[in-house]
Amino acid sequence: MESAIGVLVAQFKAHAGSDGSSDTLSRDEFHRLVKSELPNFVKNAADPTAIDQLMSSLDNNNDGELNFLEFWQLIGHLASKHGGFSQ
Amino acid sequence: MESAIGVLVAQFKAHAGSDGSSDTLSRDEFHRLVKSELPNFVKNAADPTAIDQLMSSLDNNNDGELNFLEFWQLIGHLASKHGGFSQ
Repeated sequence: MESAIGVLVAQFKAHAGSDGSSDTLSRDEFHRLVKSELPNFVKNAADPTAIDQLMSSLDNNNDGELNFLEFWQLIGHLASKHGGFSQ
Repeated sequence: MESAIGVLVAQFKAHAGSDGSSDTLSRDEFHRLVKSELPNFVKNAADPTAIDQLMSSLDNNNDGELNFLEFWQLIGHLASKHGGFSQ
């Protein structure tokens, strides 16, 4: 479990570090992450409008960037759905 | 990233399924999971009192069981710490 957590952190950092703040995902970084890392878990992963809406829904402090815990909420919901747990 | 999420879901289910409700972690299941899966990420993983306190802090609906999203909050905080993100 610790190694799987390490993988998620490392992949978040790899994408977050590509431009601007290295600890948060910009809009472009989030689009690239969803397309490359979550193509099956996120519905409409290739639709920019859908991904913009998804990003807005996660960006609790409305700063146009996703921090790690905002991003973690998304993968929690994806994981919960994947696992068939009631939401 | 999807495979790492799958690992976390599978390991949660493996522990949650060992007694009672197969979708939630009982106190005993949580203790075993922390000890076996998160020995380095959770401080005092071998101290039953500390793990009881940790479980109470996560059990938002106070039903004595942790559901998947309650558990997900824990590993989000562990991951955030592991990644060196500001909380």
